[in-house]
Amino acid sequence: MDWPVQVVDCLAGKIAVGETLTLKGWVRTRRDSKAGFSFINLHDGSCFDGIQVVADGSLPNYETDILKLGAGCSITVSGEVVASQGKEQALEIKAVAIEVMGWVDDPESYPVAKKRHTFEYLRTVAHLRPRTNTFGAIARIRNTASQAIHRYFHERNFYWVNTPIITASDCEGAGEMFRVSTLDLLNLPKDDKGGVDFSQDFFADEAFLTVSGQLNGEAYCTALSRIYTFGPTFRAENSHTSRHLAEFWMVEPELAFADLQDNADMAEEFLQFVFKAVLEERGDDMAFFAQHINPGAISRLENVVSSQFVRMDYSEAIRILENCGKTFEYPVQWGLDLQSEHERYLAEEHVGRPVILMNYPQEIKAFYMRQNEDGKTCAAMDVLAPGIGEIIGGSQREERLDILDAKMEALGLEKNLWWYRDLRRYGTIPHAGFGLGFERLLNYITGMENIRDAIPFPRVPGSAQF
Amino acid sequence: MDWPVQVVDCLAGKIAVGETLTLKGWVRTRRDSKAGFSFINLHDGSCFDGIQVVADGSLPNYETDILKLGAGCSITVSGEVVASQGKEQALEIKAVAIEVMGWVDDPESYPVAKKRHTFEYLRTVAHLRPRTNTFGAIARIRNTASQAIHRYFHERNFYWVNTPIITASDCEGAGEMFRVSTLDLLNLPKDDKGGVDFSQDFFADEAFLTVSGQLNGEAYCTALSRIYTFGPTFRAENSHTSRHLAEFWMVEPELAFADLQDNADMAEEFLQFVFKAVLEERGDDMAFFAQHINPGAISRLENVVSSQFVRMDYSEAIRILENCGKTFEYPVQWGLDLQSEHERYLAEEHVGRPVILMNYPQEIKAFYMRQNEDGKTCAAMDVLAPGIGEIIGGSQREERLDILDAKMEALGLEKNLWWYRDLRRYGTIPHAGFGLGFERLLNYITGMENIRDAIPFPRVPGSAQF
Repeated sequence: MDWPVQVVDCLAGKIAVGETLTLKGWVRTRRDSKAGFSFINLHDGSCFDGIQVVADGSLPNYETDILKLGAGCSITVSGEVVASQGKEQALEIKAVAIEVMGWVDDPESYPVAKKRHTFEYLRTVAHLRPRTNTFGAIARIRNTASQAIHRYFHERNFYWVNTPIITASDCEGAGEMFRVSTLDLLNLPKDDKGGVDFSQDFFADEAFLTVSGQLNGEAYCTALSRIYTFGPTFRAENSHTSRHLAEFWMVEPELAFADLQDNADMAEEFLQFVFKAVLEERGDDMAFFAQHINPGAISRLENVVSSQFVRMDYSEAIRILENCGKTFEYPVQWGLDLQSEHERYLAEEHVGRPVILMNYPQEIKAFYMRQNEDGKTCAAMDVLAPGIGEIIGGSQREERLDILDAKMEALGLEKNLWWYRDLRRYGTIPHAGFGLGFERLLNYITGMENIRDAIPFPRVPGSAQF
Repeated sequence: MDWPVQVVDCLAGKIAVGETLTLKGWVRTRRDSKAGFSFINLHDGSCFDGIQVVADGSLPNYETDILKLGAGCSITVSGEVVASQGKEQALEIKAVAIEVMGWVDDPESYPVAKKRHTFEYLRTVAHLRPRTNTFGAIARIRNTASQAIHRYFHERNFYWVNTPIITASDCEGAGEMFRVSTLDLLNLPKDDKGGVDFSQDFFADEAFLTVSGQLNGEAYCTALSRIYTFGPTFRAENSHTSRHLAEFWMVEPELAFADLQDNADMAEEFLQFVFKAVLEERGDDMAFFAQHINPGAISRLENVVSSQFVRMDYSEAIRILENCGKTFEYPVQWGLDLQSEHERYLAEEHVGRPVILMNYPQEIKAFYMRQNEDGKTCAAMDVLAPGIGEIIGGSQREERLDILDAKMEALGLEKNLWWYRDLRRYGTIPHAGFGLGFERLLNYITGMENIRDAIPFPRVPGSAQF
């Protein structure tokens, strides 16, 4: 297939000065010179910048079309690559012909016309917001980070495993889960006790949207050694904060024959790999975020890439927080979970680079995390990054059947998760993994503050539009 | 991070003869020699084959541990890489120490002990089946095809867009969709008319699992020019066939400034790229499928890679089928959709290589497909492959607002899909794309017959286990 030239190719100098070409895209701005010609800034989304097109007044449709072009119109430009007179770009296109493919219906009311809009407003036009500088840049960075994540794992013999979205195995408590059903709500089948008879539902059981692919991922890890998931997960929490989505993407690697130290090493290498790829491959978009959204956007990533992460025990972190002389909103005490303010103090003020906190009290952590020898803590870890706090959470998994059984029985999980304990009955192995919320990572990369702006079409309480 | 050596590295000769190393994995078989030593076949899932470990009777735990090892036990082997005496592999490991990490509880009943099992049985132990030859191979091929898909698009400036899973925009009719809800089923809120009051549900509206990311993908295509989706989609069809899943993964590229011919060219190049990657990168697993599952597995892919796909009009296909002298179960008539038997006749018997059928009657195709000048057909295409029939379905999209509006109004879609028509109101462009069912592609690659075996944890009517 012949792939047409795009703006990114031109700006990269892949088409020599003097060559002719055809470009297709959308007008971002038009500026008319008094000397009887116009400058059109043409975008096609292939990179942050558009390319300047010079349209001479002698073009046959100059009066009828070109002088009517505005933001959002789609055009085909044929012309010659020439050296630019301006300072901004080295090259521009001298148009030989400009054809209009699509006008903008009522330009005055075009929802993303060239002017500043609030991010809140742009969420109401989520179908058009990728046409703006900010959301085009987020979309490209999201892709670059995604590709880097796949590449990181693929190069290290990890297999991408697509764990199920719909599940009848409840992992972390049904209260926060979405039910998936085809039952007729106005004619619900009932059982003897007056409850809903889910045996008549599509899956012959009560089914939910997954909150994590980890447990299924472990089944594949204990067969293929290295696997990762990268897919959508769900929380039915009624949280209206800038940090919660009902639907978000998670990355969850699971590594066989590994302990908590290996897990920490992998998390560090992984984050550095992804950030390095974004810095190297999306300099254009990152420059925009550093200039217009968050001045520290680039230096924050560079700092993570070049820092060695600090490892610290949870117990030591508690001592530091207790003795730091700072007043926190939430209490600091051994046995309590850390809040964002504590995490950020540790990463930002105490050490000034990423910290991996390890060995949390097992009471505040999940049943599958490996119990330490002290009987009080477990092999859990959180990676805390300056500017955001927790960015990764993980653990070594409990591989000893008797200890796992005791924990599962206490929570009543042994019936639904019979298959999970099989992984320890048959050739059990030490293994470890972590979970990364992908949108939270993107906010960290771009400096965007609301997680609703890190995913194309956010799902939150009260809205599943588009 | 220091990544430990895996079996795949050893078999590829990356560790020189004479070097010592440590390998971790699972025992597949143990064979004892009369001369007082044992051969252990050690797998770690990093490739199809295991590596042979020679355990001498002089090892301190030879009697207590090694002679008790069976399928599924996890062990750590330290030893030396030596040239193999056997014919199967060039190298083997001469063990210096073997440590058992995990035994198999009751080896007699180990669900995937080394013997032949039916695929139907293995679905009941989906958590353990990746430990078998067949499902280990499928998992690795699934990953290789996935990585190739990402690479194909990434190298051509396509951006991966994560379109929403939960949606209140109904695309193809609610009858086949799963409802997503947090309403208390035993205490449903009602509206004035006695219906369910979905305004009190989590999303303040009736919400479903998506059947396709295409429409959302188009919003990003008309901003970034080249995008693709690759994610889970859902059908609540009560189909118990070997070709249907309730949850499956789809790949949906969308290309701006493209017509049906471009779309066909892309589909051809794409399939050839993915098949080539699988043949080149997973020769070990493909050899297994060709030997044990489907003798034509490799040659079928090679044939697609080296063939130029035939382009044919739907109308011509109907003429061919009407005049071929063959008796079909389903009728052949202009205006009716083709059945699998027709598609396979065309691809297998009539041309003997992949065929791209184009310009179907618009009555049998979706509203968003572009109406042709004849007023009867639309710019739809299906790629038919020998051995399976339809493998890709796509179209040029209707970019003309007036024609799209008429079709949407006839179906009552204009209210929910107001945003979709905006994409034509503002700088509309010709664009095209296709959809590929990923599990169907994997069945085509491997020769596996049931689609439930192409996804790690299949969801079908009556079962969302694991």
